[in-house]
Amino acid sequence: MLITDLVLHPIAISDPPLRSSYGRHAPFALRTIVELKTDSGLTGISETYGGDGPLAGLEAVRHRVTGMDPFQLARLYRDLTAEAAHEMDSAPGGRTQTYLVPGENPLDRHARTFAAIEIACLDLIGRAVGKPVCDVIGGRVRDEVSFSAYLFYKHGVPAGDEYGEVLDARSCVRECKQMIAKYGFREIKLKGGVLEPDIEIATIRALREEFGRSYPLRIDPNCAWSVETSVRVGRELQEELSDGGYLEDPCATLEGMAEVRHRLLTENNHMPQASNVAVTCFADVPKAKSLDAVQIVLSDPHYWGGMRNVQQLSHLTGVLGMGLSMHSNSHLGVSLMAMTHAAAACPNLTYACDTHYPWQTAEDEVAAGGRIAFVNGSVRIPDKPGLGVDLDYDQLARGRERYSKIPYRKRDDEAEMRKHVDPDWRRVLPRW
Amino acid sequence: MLITDLVLHPIAISDPPLRSSYGRHAPFALRTIVELKTDSGLTGISETYGGDGPLAGLEAVRHRVTGMDPFQLARLYRDLTAEAAHEMDSAPGGRTQTYLVPGENPLDRHARTFAAIEIACLDLIGRAVGKPVCDVIGGRVRDEVSFSAYLFYKHGVPAGDEYGEVLDARSCVRECKQMIAKYGFREIKLKGGVLEPDIEIATIRALREEFGRSYPLRIDPNCAWSVETSVRVGRELQEELSDGGYLEDPCATLEGMAEVRHRLLTENNHMPQASNVAVTCFADVPKAKSLDAVQIVLSDPHYWGGMRNVQQLSHLTGVLGMGLSMHSNSHLGVSLMAMTHAAAACPNLTYACDTHYPWQTAEDEVAAGGRIAFVNGSVRIPDKPGLGVDLDYDQLARGRERYSKIPYRKRDDEAEMRKHVDPDWRRVLPRW
Repeated sequence: MLITDLVLHPIAISDPPLRSSYGRHAPFALRTIVELKTDSGLTGISETYGGDGPLAGLEAVRHRVTGMDPFQLARLYRDLTAEAAHEMDSAPGGRTQTYLVPGENPLDRHARTFAAIEIACLDLIGRAVGKPVCDVIGGRVRDEVSFSAYLFYKHGVPAGDEYGEVLDARSCVRECKQMIAKYGFREIKLKGGVLEPDIEIATIRALREEFGRSYPLRIDPNCAWSVETSVRVGRELQEELSDGGYLEDPCATLEGMAEVRHRLLTENNHMPQASNVAVTCFADVPKAKSLDAVQIVLSDPHYWGGMRNVQQLSHLTGVLGMGLSMHSNSHLGVSLMAMTHAAAACPNLTYACDTHYPWQTAEDEVAAGGRIAFVNGSVRIPDKPGLGVDLDYDQLARGRERYSKIPYRKRDDEAEMRKHVDPDWRRVLPRW
Repeated sequence: MLITDLVLHPIAISDPPLRSSYGRHAPFALRTIVELKTDSGLTGISETYGGDGPLAGLEAVRHRVTGMDPFQLARLYRDLTAEAAHEMDSAPGGRTQTYLVPGENPLDRHARTFAAIEIACLDLIGRAVGKPVCDVIGGRVRDEVSFSAYLFYKHGVPAGDEYGEVLDARSCVRECKQMIAKYGFREIKLKGGVLEPDIEIATIRALREEFGRSYPLRIDPNCAWSVETSVRVGRELQEELSDGGYLEDPCATLEGMAEVRHRLLTENNHMPQASNVAVTCFADVPKAKSLDAVQIVLSDPHYWGGMRNVQQLSHLTGVLGMGLSMHSNSHLGVSLMAMTHAAAACPNLTYACDTHYPWQTAEDEVAAGGRIAFVNGSVRIPDKPGLGVDLDYDQLARGRERYSKIPYRKRDDEAEMRKHVDPDWRRVLPRW
């Protein structure tokens, strides 16, 4: 079985105006659906970041992927990594995610490109051997994967928005109740760094009051806070975030997070910190550990270099005594299944995974048969080969058409803020 | 494809009287050939340690393996590891390899048992999908794997021994020339800790003189030396062991090796240290790194828990900036192929691997078609599914018969020393 063609489908999917410290989501998120055709007649699929950058990254490996044996992935990863290391050595200031939305960091482009190829190859292998992908990569340790209710502040929502405006504690509790009623999630994550810290503190407290201690809570302001503010929030929310929850990327850099950690520890506050901004590649992990800046790493098959790399991260964090969860971006069902298979094959996975899936709708889903089902907040590994999902080509065509009609080719949450909220808005760190 | 039967073949293979700090090899080494039969008609094979202990470990998982899907390995490893962790917690003195020959440490029994099952499952999967095992586990990064000339002091050799007695520098050079002429090895390893350190130093110097700087040299006294002696040898052999070579387990414990390292560094001697005695499980690796006791970890699919664990070790050592090579025990061709596939799939592999294979003979080989070929010191990944090796059942029957006729069921190198060399011999650490 050799790969004969790489087919890229750039698509756009409707997205609500979700707020974060990066700005505001545009009305459409960009994704790419990847197909790998083979001489066996089988096709493997994956889903990744969208727009010009990710497409160019994939186009650049077309000549390597065409003719490739989908089983022989390690050499492609080694070669792309070596080339990227060379580029990174010459990058001013080195690698940092602090100022970049996921999917737009040029320094992990190779890992994102490889991941899209790897996941489609693993789907191919699974289809060829009649096994789910989680078993192709060593075997599942769980049959279903738990996800968390991922809450966002939102404003300026279009008419008919399912969850409405969310700009305070009360409306956020409503959003959470709706989402839990629909999906059955058992852990809750709030995207913070958007409103005054006191409003966000009040929101977390209202969520705890409504849902009780059996629903672990986490908040992620994406580095919007100073060390001082991070310590204050950590102090005020010690009880709420310590019961199986965490504080995620409160401020910028590992050094900043280490200072927050050490100051909270002197107050006997052991609230763990998670990161997918200060820790975005394997080299960051031992440093995060030695500084004790981060106790939980957020994996993601899309930008950590694929599903086997997520397993490697599970192993590495396990050896170093760290926790593991999973980051998410706006995505459809193909990505959801890749995340689910990867998570199912990770022995060290200590928290429910993030997912933006509730923010997308059936109108945009490209998975044949429609939206992936959640039961009690979890996605079950389907009893099907590969990722367990096929493409609905009519839906894919609609996604391509939407893509062709929108003017932007890059995620730019700041531009959305300037357009809809404040013509002078820019991302300032720390904001509070 | 489900496993229907686990068949264990205990065999004995002729072994020369190889010396090490553990004592002397007995006339026969014990191995176990594992067969996993399936309802698909395919059989997967592996080779592991022999004798009562390893057999009992495998018998203990028979009920779990029977009926198992060979793709679903991770749960078996997780369960065996969890049970072993429980045992280790209650083991007096904790886990150490210092006083145990590989294969006889009760605290990594679970990893050895799992490895024998995993390798046979990967062979099965490879046969089922028509791919070499190195590609089943993610893809090779090299098509052939380099091994080193593994030299031993020997005495009391039987008549007709191919390499004869080796008890000084001159005879060791002769042994090395013979072995390199036959196999083409390009790196040289001397098992030390046997004779007075000055004789071993002279041996290394004679090897350097004979083969030159293009043949990297390493010496492994298996903890026979004190810190003081280790520093002295490190000082005297600085030049010889630094050109792509290393000093392996000169003394006992990570703390001892850290002291050797730090003392040599103060003399601007950067000779790296390798270990498969002070570092035998994943938890040892970060400790070895933080103490700077060990710069090169010696993997081994047999006791590190299988081929995917060797890949994890390659990744972990790569992330921590450490080197990787591979340890060996007396073995036949099935083990050699497992070692070769594992090594081929490790991006971070910085030295030629060890192998005892030259010490075994065609008379004992159970691989169909006879001995595995070396070209220029390397074994090539065969263009065949699975491990690429089948069993010769006649040869296997001969191995079983030899096993049935010998009285011992456990490797005991001290007993051999008492029998043949000195009735009062026992392993004393440090000896010098």
